[in-house]
Amino acid sequence: MTLFHGLSAFPVTPADEAGRVDTDRLQALVSRLAAAGVASIGVLGSTGGYPYFSSPERARALTAAVAAANSAPVLAGIGALRASDVLRHAQDAEAAGAAGLLLAPVSYLPLTDGEVLGLARDVAAASSLPILIYNNPGTTHFTISEDLLLRLAEIPTVRAVKNPAPPDGDFAAQIARLRPRLPEHFSLGYSGDATIVGALAAGADAWYSVIAGTFPEICRAFWEARADPGRLAALDARLGPLWDLFTAHGGIRVIHEAVNLIGLGPVALPRPLLPLPAPVRDEIAAALAAAGLLTGEAA
Amino acid sequence: MTLFHGLSAFPVTPADEAGRVDTDRLQALVSRLAAAGVASIGVLGSTGGYPYFSSPERARALTAAVAAANSAPVLAGIGALRASDVLRHAQDAEAAGAAGLLLAPVSYLPLTDGEVLGLARDVAAASSLPILIYNNPGTTHFTISEDLLLRLAEIPTVRAVKNPAPPDGDFAAQIARLRPRLPEHFSLGYSGDATIVGALAAGADAWYSVIAGTFPEICRAFWEARADPGRLAALDARLGPLWDLFTAHGGIRVIHEAVNLIGLGPVALPRPLLPLPAPVRDEIAAALAAAGLLTGEAA
Repeated sequence: MTLFHGLSAFPVTPADEAGRVDTDRLQALVSRLAAAGVASIGVLGSTGGYPYFSSPERARALTAAVAAANSAPVLAGIGALRASDVLRHAQDAEAAGAAGLLLAPVSYLPLTDGEVLGLARDVAAASSLPILIYNNPGTTHFTISEDLLLRLAEIPTVRAVKNPAPPDGDFAAQIARLRPRLPEHFSLGYSGDATIVGALAAGADAWYSVIAGTFPEICRAFWEARADPGRLAALDARLGPLWDLFTAHGGIRVIHEAVNLIGLGPVALPRPLLPLPAPVRDEIAAALAAAGLLTGEAA
Repeated sequence: MTLFHGLSAFPVTPADEAGRVDTDRLQALVSRLAAAGVASIGVLGSTGGYPYFSSPERARALTAAVAAANSAPVLAGIGALRASDVLRHAQDAEAAGAAGLLLAPVSYLPLTDGEVLGLARDVAAASSLPILIYNNPGTTHFTISEDLLLRLAEIPTVRAVKNPAPPDGDFAAQIARLRPRLPEHFSLGYSGDATIVGALAAGADAWYSVIAGTFPEICRAFWEARADPGRLAALDARLGPLWDLFTAHGGIRVIHEAVNLIGLGPVALPRPLLPLPAPVRDEIAAALAAAGLLTGEAA
């Protein structure tokens, strides 16, 4: 098993309104994930709000998370608009004891493929840690094409990708296209919890999960059932109402409310982002209750 | 004439690779704009790379710009992902002596209309300066609809909008739709240099210009000719080759090369953004030469 194989759980980052990370509460979330036996813990992913935090707060969060992870590998989100900040985050992550780097091509002015390739090369030169390329066009507004991914994978320390669901929904076809052209042991993983069963059934190497950052046990059950279509479908049906809410409101917004509902909060996304309206929170509570997740997990 | 009327010129922000602003070079650009008699100077707009700079550097840039502006009003870009940073920027801008605030709804997780409205209200509560709403979906990935604009305009200190060209290109129709529903004296201005003649001919109140930040004289000529279709068309034709390059590569990337070509640099966008390739730089030089802009301006 390599670093980028299996279930990777992405917790939220508890913080105050000014962006000061609540390291005690973060450590409580992280130690819970380590105890659940996830393959890795993704700190400061999109779920953890990485672009909303200053560099010093990101370093504080990582140091606290690594200390709480009980030797479980921590993946550190290092994305930022300015390359000099990205390199600083890579070095801070390595100093904090992270096991891998999660690199998203965050953009304001649109980026070119050559610029994203240059950024990845600069990160590889600045840190010896393995790099997970984070393809998330919905937030970064840059799409890592399959052709660009193949070029990125030529960088020796680029070892994995975290892809969204393919536009046509055909995970098996994308994996079949990419696998023979990628280096051996390159990890092809996916995010997008609401459609993840398709990726698991198609043989994805990893699942980078929003929900696992708060409900790791049931997500481990998904992962263990990946070769058992009946069991996988039953688990997916159990979370169907939650997936509908993820699709309607965004999984990251929904999971913050879920953290509060199970008593691990209070947490909130930074303003101007607002909590979901009370009727939606009620729907989340109902979906969690129906899945048996509202008062302790049982997979 | 109000603050948000006429030609507003947006200079680049000279800085080193780590994001330290070169205030001497910025002041040289700003004092040149003040001498050219532009109506206002937009510091830390998209042209000035606002989201790529730290809050302290943004404050340094504004203080330096106001000192060099020789009483010309300075508009300060205050946008950021986190509301607490936006409010800090608003207060820093007021302390630095800015005359108005340029507020863009920067996003990572997608924003709702209610969240953008809440942000604008919070800014209005935190600063007495008039607010210019910055609608730039291509970079912020949030579209300020006409309906949302009308709601924003109900905030007493929200006095103006900087819109992109309407999707259908019909400036006159958009102005006719909005004008009767907006408060008296609310300023309806546009950006998008390559298509600005349409806005000027349609009676826009202001032009927020990338090119004017480096070539203010010819842009003043555009503004003065706004009621003279023949003269306006002749000026537009003169800059046609430059507009083609703006459209192909982005005006902000092109203008950085232009600053260097006329000897006001060196300036560069922050990495991972890269300079345009040498053949494109040659095209920019040719377009500037054809327009009479390569060796001093003459309108």
